[in-house]
Amino acid sequence: MTHKRLPKTFTENIRVSAAACFGSKFEKEGPLGAYFDGFVKEEPDDGETWEKNESDMIKSTVTALLEKSRIPEKEVGLLLGGDLMNQCTSSAYGLEEFDIPYIGLYGACSTFVEGIMTGSMYIESNAVNSAIASASSHFCTAERQYRFPLFYGAFPQGTSQHTVTGCGAALIEKVGRNEKGVFVKSTLPGIVINRGITNAANMGAAMATAAADTILRHLESTNTTLSDYDLIATGDLGKIGLEMAKDLLKLQGFYDKKGIFTDCGTLIYDTERQDVSCGGSGCGCSAVTFCGYIYDKMSKGELKKVLLVGTGAMMSPQSLLQGLSIPAVAHLVEFEVRA
Amino acid sequence: MTHKRLPKTFTENIRVSAAACFGSKFEKEGPLGAYFDGFVKEEPDDGETWEKNESDMIKSTVTALLEKSRIPEKEVGLLLGGDLMNQCTSSAYGLEEFDIPYIGLYGACSTFVEGIMTGSMYIESNAVNSAIASASSHFCTAERQYRFPLFYGAFPQGTSQHTVTGCGAALIEKVGRNEKGVFVKSTLPGIVINRGITNAANMGAAMATAAADTILRHLESTNTTLSDYDLIATGDLGKIGLEMAKDLLKLQGFYDKKGIFTDCGTLIYDTERQDVSCGGSGCGCSAVTFCGYIYDKMSKGELKKVLLVGTGAMMSPQSLLQGLSIPAVAHLVEFEVRA
Repeated sequence: MTHKRLPKTFTENIRVSAAACFGSKFEKEGPLGAYFDGFVKEEPDDGETWEKNESDMIKSTVTALLEKSRIPEKEVGLLLGGDLMNQCTSSAYGLEEFDIPYIGLYGACSTFVEGIMTGSMYIESNAVNSAIASASSHFCTAERQYRFPLFYGAFPQGTSQHTVTGCGAALIEKVGRNEKGVFVKSTLPGIVINRGITNAANMGAAMATAAADTILRHLESTNTTLSDYDLIATGDLGKIGLEMAKDLLKLQGFYDKKGIFTDCGTLIYDTERQDVSCGGSGCGCSAVTFCGYIYDKMSKGELKKVLLVGTGAMMSPQSLLQGLSIPAVAHLVEFEVRA
Repeated sequence: MTHKRLPKTFTENIRVSAAACFGSKFEKEGPLGAYFDGFVKEEPDDGETWEKNESDMIKSTVTALLEKSRIPEKEVGLLLGGDLMNQCTSSAYGLEEFDIPYIGLYGACSTFVEGIMTGSMYIESNAVNSAIASASSHFCTAERQYRFPLFYGAFPQGTSQHTVTGCGAALIEKVGRNEKGVFVKSTLPGIVINRGITNAANMGAAMATAAADTILRHLESTNTTLSDYDLIATGDLGKIGLEMAKDLLKLQGFYDKKGIFTDCGTLIYDTERQDVSCGGSGCGCSAVTFCGYIYDKMSKGELKKVLLVGTGAMMSPQSLLQGLSIPAVAHLVEFEVRA
C-alpha cells in the first residue's frame, strides 16, 4: 500500500448548497426511494432511445438542482460531469443546453467524487465561485454496452452488481465563514491499483484494495480512526467488495467498531428483496446515494462527519476481451456539518 | 455567443518544467518529426494489440517525461490523463504502473488542455506541488472504434482528419517567483455548443464555433487582440475548421493580421504531401504539438506568448447513428515565457 500523498484540507468554505437526484421505478422501490426528486419514464417514447432517456434524466436532475439552489444558471461557474457511456455522451448531450462551462470526467463509478473534488479545486483556486458535479448511469444503456442486450435475459452472477439507473448532482459554492450547512472539508485522490482480477462480474473485489488504500492514507494522515466518522460509504463495492475492504483495513489495525462503514451499492437496494446480486453499481449509485439520502441526513444533522469514497473500475469490455485485468481507483471526499 | 465567465489568472508560479512526446513513423515523416522523444513500434508483436501499443506509448511518454524532469515519480502529486478509447482505457492501462494519484478526464481532443488547466487548479489550491497532464490517440485504435477496421481500406472524405498516433505529456509544478521558463498564465474552460453538424467527417466545422467562442471570451476579458500573441493554436480544427474559426472572429472584429492563428492539426502533418485530408486530429494531436514543437520554441524564447485552445467533439459513433448532432467544447490555456 502507498502512503505518500496527503489529503487537501480546504481553506475556503466550500458548501454543498443543494443536491438533487433522479432514478427509475426500480430505485424508487428500494430503501432510498423517498429521497429522490423525480423518476425517469419507464419506457422511452416511440422513436426515442434508452440513451436519450439517460441524457434526459441528467438534464432533469440538473434542472431540479438549479431550481433548489438560489444561484441562477448563468452564475454557476462550472459543470463537471461524467457517466459510463462510450465517450461520456450521456453527460455531453444531457448537459449541452446549460450555458455553463463544462469539464468532462471519466472515473467510472468514482466520477461523482472526482467531480466534487475537482470542482472544489476550481473554487479553492478562485477560478469560480460555484460548481455543479453530476454523475449518471442507466441500467439499460449499461447492459447493452457492457454485457448483453436486455432481450437476451442473461443471468447475473452471484458476485455481480446491478447498474443503478440514476443521476445525482450537487452544487458546491464558496460561502462566508459563519455560514452553516454541509461542507467539503478535505479530499484525497486515489492511486490506480490493479490486483489481477479479470472477472467483470466481480468488480467489488477489483476495487476493494484501491478503496482500502485511499481510506488508509486518509486515516493515517489525519490521525483518525473509523470511529471518528458517522458514516464511511464506498461507492460501489457491493456486499462482497465491502467485506474485503473491511478485512484489508482490519489487517492494518482499523476496526469498524461502530458499524459505520458501508457501501452505496448496499444502501440503495434491498439486496434480500430486490434481485441485484451484490448490490448497486454505476456512476449514478454513489451520486444518488449522496445527493439523496446522505445529504438529507447531513442537512438534518443526523450525520455530521462523512467520508464518501468513490471507487472506479477502469476497464472496458474490449480490454477484458483482450485479456487484461481490472485497474481500480478510489477518490475520497470528507464532508462535515457546520452548525 | 456567451461572454459571461472570466479567465483564471494564476497567482502561484506554475511552470511547465518538462514535456515529452511520442508518435509513429507517420508523424516522424511530418514537419514536426524532429521534435519527438521516441516512436512506437510499427507493428505490434505477435499476440499484442494496437490498444496495448497505445498504452505502451503513453507509458513510454510519461517515463521519458520523468527522466527529463528533476522530480522523482514518488513526488509527483497528480497524473491527469485521457484518450479516445471507450472508458479511456488507453490511459488507465498506460498509467496504472505509476505510483501517482490519477484523475481520468474525457474531453475528446480538448483533453490535453483540460488536463493542464485542471492540474493547474490542483497546484493553485496547494493540493499538490506538481502534476503531469497526458493525452493520447492512435490511428489504428481510433479507426477501428470510430470508423472501419483498417483492412476495409475505407476512403476518407475531403473534410475528414487523420487521427494522430501520438502521446504528449507535460510536467507542471509550482516554482519560486524568480524562476524562468514556460509558465501557465491563465486558463478558461469552454461552454458546450452544438450547432447541428451531424457529419463525423466534418468535426472541424462542429468545433469551430466553440473555439471562436472561447477565444473571443479570452480576448474580450483580457482586453487583447490576436496580434498580442506570438501563436494561437487550436487543436484540432483542421484546415477547413480553422478558416471557419478565423471567419467567426473576423465577424466580431478580430483579424489575424500577423498570421499567428493556426491549428495543431495543420501543423503536425504536411497536408500537401501526406494523405491526411484536412490535417490531424485526436487527443494526441494538440498534446504532441505542444509538448514537442511549441514547448521547444517557447523554451528557446522564439515564441513568448501562446494560446493553446483544445477543441473537443463530444459525440460517439452510437450518438451519431442515433441521429444526434455533435456537441463541441473548447478549453484555453495561456502560456508565457518568463526570462
